[in-house]
Amino acid sequence: MNRQAVYHEAKSRWAYAADAKTLHIRLRAAKGDLTNVTLTATDPFNWFEFEDGEHRFDRDGVFSSDMTKEGSDELFDYWFCEVTGIPTKRIRYSFVIGDGKEAVRYSARGFTENTGDFDGLLGWFNFPFINEEDLFTPPEWGENTVWYQIFCDRFCRSGGDTSVPWGSSDTKIHTTFFGGNLRGVMEKLPYIADLGFSGIYFTHLFLSPSTHKYDTVDYFQIDPQFGTNEEFRELVNEAHRLGIRIMLDAVFNHCAFEHPYFQDVVKNGKASPYYDCFHIHREPVLNFTLKDGKHIPKLTAKQQKELSFLTFAYTPHMPKWNTANATTRKLLIDAAVYWVREFGIDGWRLDVSNEVSHDFWRELRRKLSEIKPDVLLLGENWDDAQAWLNGDQFDSVMNYRFLSATVEFIGGKTDAEGFVTSLTREVLAAYPKPVQRLLFNILETHDTDRFLTATGNNPAAGLLGYVLLLTTAGSPSVYYGGEIGATGRSAGDENRRCMPWGEPIPPERDYREALRTLLQLRKSHPSFRSPDIRFLKTEGGLLAYQKETNGETLLVILNNSGDPVAFTPPEGAYTDAMTGRPQPSGTITVPSYGFYLMLNA
Amino acid sequence: MNRQAVYHEAKSRWAYAADAKTLHIRLRAAKGDLTNVTLTATDPFNWFEFEDGEHRFDRDGVFSSDMTKEGSDELFDYWFCEVTGIPTKRIRYSFVIGDGKEAVRYSARGFTENTGDFDGLLGWFNFPFINEEDLFTPPEWGENTVWYQIFCDRFCRSGGDTSVPWGSSDTKIHTTFFGGNLRGVMEKLPYIADLGFSGIYFTHLFLSPSTHKYDTVDYFQIDPQFGTNEEFRELVNEAHRLGIRIMLDAVFNHCAFEHPYFQDVVKNGKASPYYDCFHIHREPVLNFTLKDGKHIPKLTAKQQKELSFLTFAYTPHMPKWNTANATTRKLLIDAAVYWVREFGIDGWRLDVSNEVSHDFWRELRRKLSEIKPDVLLLGENWDDAQAWLNGDQFDSVMNYRFLSATVEFIGGKTDAEGFVTSLTREVLAAYPKPVQRLLFNILETHDTDRFLTATGNNPAAGLLGYVLLLTTAGSPSVYYGGEIGATGRSAGDENRRCMPWGEPIPPERDYREALRTLLQLRKSHPSFRSPDIRFLKTEGGLLAYQKETNGETLLVILNNSGDPVAFTPPEGAYTDAMTGRPQPSGTITVPSYGFYLMLNA
Repeated sequence: MNRQAVYHEAKSRWAYAADAKTLHIRLRAAKGDLTNVTLTATDPFNWFEFEDGEHRFDRDGVFSSDMTKEGSDELFDYWFCEVTGIPTKRIRYSFVIGDGKEAVRYSARGFTENTGDFDGLLGWFNFPFINEEDLFTPPEWGENTVWYQIFCDRFCRSGGDTSVPWGSSDTKIHTTFFGGNLRGVMEKLPYIADLGFSGIYFTHLFLSPSTHKYDTVDYFQIDPQFGTNEEFRELVNEAHRLGIRIMLDAVFNHCAFEHPYFQDVVKNGKASPYYDCFHIHREPVLNFTLKDGKHIPKLTAKQQKELSFLTFAYTPHMPKWNTANATTRKLLIDAAVYWVREFGIDGWRLDVSNEVSHDFWRELRRKLSEIKPDVLLLGENWDDAQAWLNGDQFDSVMNYRFLSATVEFIGGKTDAEGFVTSLTREVLAAYPKPVQRLLFNILETHDTDRFLTATGNNPAAGLLGYVLLLTTAGSPSVYYGGEIGATGRSAGDENRRCMPWGEPIPPERDYREALRTLLQLRKSHPSFRSPDIRFLKTEGGLLAYQKETNGETLLVILNNSGDPVAFTPPEGAYTDAMTGRPQPSGTITVPSYGFYLMLNA
Repeated sequence: MNRQAVYHEAKSRWAYAADAKTLHIRLRAAKGDLTNVTLTATDPFNWFEFEDGEHRFDRDGVFSSDMTKEGSDELFDYWFCEVTGIPTKRIRYSFVIGDGKEAVRYSARGFTENTGDFDGLLGWFNFPFINEEDLFTPPEWGENTVWYQIFCDRFCRSGGDTSVPWGSSDTKIHTTFFGGNLRGVMEKLPYIADLGFSGIYFTHLFLSPSTHKYDTVDYFQIDPQFGTNEEFRELVNEAHRLGIRIMLDAVFNHCAFEHPYFQDVVKNGKASPYYDCFHIHREPVLNFTLKDGKHIPKLTAKQQKELSFLTFAYTPHMPKWNTANATTRKLLIDAAVYWVREFGIDGWRLDVSNEVSHDFWRELRRKLSEIKPDVLLLGENWDDAQAWLNGDQFDSVMNYRFLSATVEFIGGKTDAEGFVTSLTREVLAAYPKPVQRLLFNILETHDTDRFLTATGNNPAAGLLGYVLLLTTAGSPSVYYGGEIGATGRSAGDENRRCMPWGEPIPPERDYREALRTLLQLRKSHPSFRSPDIRFLKTEGGLLAYQKETNGETLLVILNNSGDPVAFTPPEGAYTDAMTGRPQPSGTITVPSYGFYLMLNA
């Protein structure tokens, strides 16, 4: 037995409360090493003076369960079970693990002989009490929402300045203002609703000199290029009428050098009341001006590294906020509250959220919960985000790990086995199931290459990505244009091209209509949204998995290869979900870059 | 290489900010498996457009460090290094690990070839930014304090009811009131100060029907048996004058069934405004009366388990608070604030702290920090407490892991190697160093057997326990009477016997005088308090370790065995710390159950 491979930690992703009465317990072990794992759990105070006068441990009420292998990656198996029915909500537990040759007890003090008694209870793992205040309780609507992400300057223009032709192949796409606006979005709300989306995530909208607006000048004003605050209010109301929730982008890590607080520091140095709102190393504090879309002065690498204040990355015109400062906190939290309370937005996507303090996010969550308990807080965390997902900070994070795994698989860098391995290691076995129900799954965003471009420009394969996206638990998001197979690299901002609004010709239209069907299916079938997944087959490009929820069974079979592949579904009567027709029983042939979705009939 | 044994996790005990500019990084690997581990860390945004027009990664400023083996237990080696000097406080990092046969890169995405380039940076571990608000910043005075724990009914009686003879060997020690009081403690403050203690931790003092007072009836009143609130104020002032800090016990998990809120529920059921202050399963709510020190009705095991409300353990007269309830929260937090603001106490020891919600502790910490930023919050966590020690909740926990390791070693259940193994696994490699500086190290408390009794009643060996206690980093505590070798089991409350106040005869007196010397040494020599420890030898009962801090070197050599043992200290000129005399160079003989403390001369 590879004892050193065994890992467990109480009060963590390895042992968490799924709800007020249920614990989930996970154990990691070397791949293929263990044959059986049993969990024993008990109330730690289960010692009583009995009628016979003896003081002893009461075996009644001890919970014991065989754990099941939930998944595997290259190196590890992940064992799982649920603990329910301990009415006091206090649980000590340990594991008996066997490899066919030996069976030992594994507890917080390591490996010991499995004597079967409870004398060593004090050395067992402890989940001391399930407190409801500490539960991870994201808004329920999150897992039933599919988002449509809009980069406002490039989505739709209605009225306004038309001097720049819409969709012109401008070589300076980074700095060209195409004039997309809120009126444009208003006009397209029926389009978005009709496709089946139930949320819009807007990249940053507030006053800012750039096309992307991630350098904020005023947190309380919609950029006039996009419209007015009143137009935004109209948009929120109309969206809500159509069943679409609205999420805005909060850039609280940094602002624009044009922000009045920072300009005051540039002008007055240490005498400024805002000096400590930022991380200023020394005076003088360099200023910048925007000329022809470029920031002047342009700094060398050396100058960027030696700048007199901290910034986002090494971007000189984005000074980093000091969130330990009370003035900074008040400004940012007031802004977050303002748009929720005054305009009724439903959530905030938090830009560069991993570089802002946990303490700040906790305060933000408290303040927002007081005015709208079901507001959604979504962090832009690219890495492991468990430290932000324990109930006190975020409800969800952008799932760039799903994106990587999918791009690598659909792009042919890995096969189906590689996809399952990455997904298991980085999502399925890495996050609590309640967290998985709300992860913001993505194939592409304004910060990445377009999915089709990243995976080799094969629209049929690209559609497989959307099948994965919409049959995975979470709160998935489609980046505008993704529905018609938009292409482009992130470099040069080709991923932010203007949305073409002519009626698409067949290949794009078919793509969009398939997506519409997938969205409808996800809405009406809870199995699409369930975090319980069982992989049936991974062979080359063939991936098949099964999801079961409340008697509903979904089979997903997709073939990411140039050749048709045969697959035999588990026995049962199925309907082809895409067509609604009965599925003939027996072996099927999955076409090259084709897929099947089957529901139990 | 046992790849499955390798463990690391960012933003955790494995990677934490030691201060605003320093990260500590740890990596676990199979014992004896790796020969070298190198850490590479860089600002993740270290890509620039250089003067030659090329956009590339800048290798300047990359931090690279060989990691050192910090310690080992039965199964694992723990590798450690410090990362400093990354001015932007943003760090991505990965490891190159070698076993003499192969060297591979280990990052957040697993094991890859070590190509030496930075293209895979997005898959490296991430410590996104060191935010000062998130640092673990306990009060600095904590690590320089040695506590004296007082169980008030049994420590010293001055005046009051003398009908029960002090120190009588009452068979009902659990329920006998001996009449110890605050006036008695006041009289003994010079004794406590003279021994060298700088803090008093009082077990619970507030109004309560029991001798131990852990069933609170009024959180705003000192129990009249002990004295008045005004007498307590005098005591705090006098203690402060003598350089002694005061810590009270906060029982916020539960109260007494006599608490007025609970009595209102007993009387009015669901109509009570306090119904939701507790966890009531159903009505009627059982009531109890205290008669001859016993609670009536006495319940059977079955009845205890089927009680109509949640309690501490299965103790029917200790109903558990529902800290999700606003009325409960207000009461408890007001009480915590009251004693700090109105009486100037320095800290709270938090009873059954692991069963109360994280959310409640965070609010308590915020509220107390506003009125006294350097207040100490100490949790009664018996198990791994990392989830409470991330800067947002506690400053310290009672270190029952140190107690177990020491009792097992001094009691002869394990040898020196076993002690080092347990301490490494459960303390040294388990907690961040800043946490270790404040752990509340103990040999015995009101909840355990007396140390001498637990280890076999050998006073010479017992003293070795105090040598370990006072040469270990933390905020150590001596339970009253420990200084004269008090004995007794926890069962039957023999560990809560009355303090004998006659001048002790030589064996006890020598014990106490040795302790006095140890306390003085710890106060004047920072090496005693440092968390940096290097084990020099473990052989049977012989344990030798070295601690270095700012040019000061301390050697601790102790022999927990029945035979004298030879030991050769590392070369150098030393002083015998206990006698102040120069230590002759060369091999020494450590007497049976004897010890040496040497400081560099």
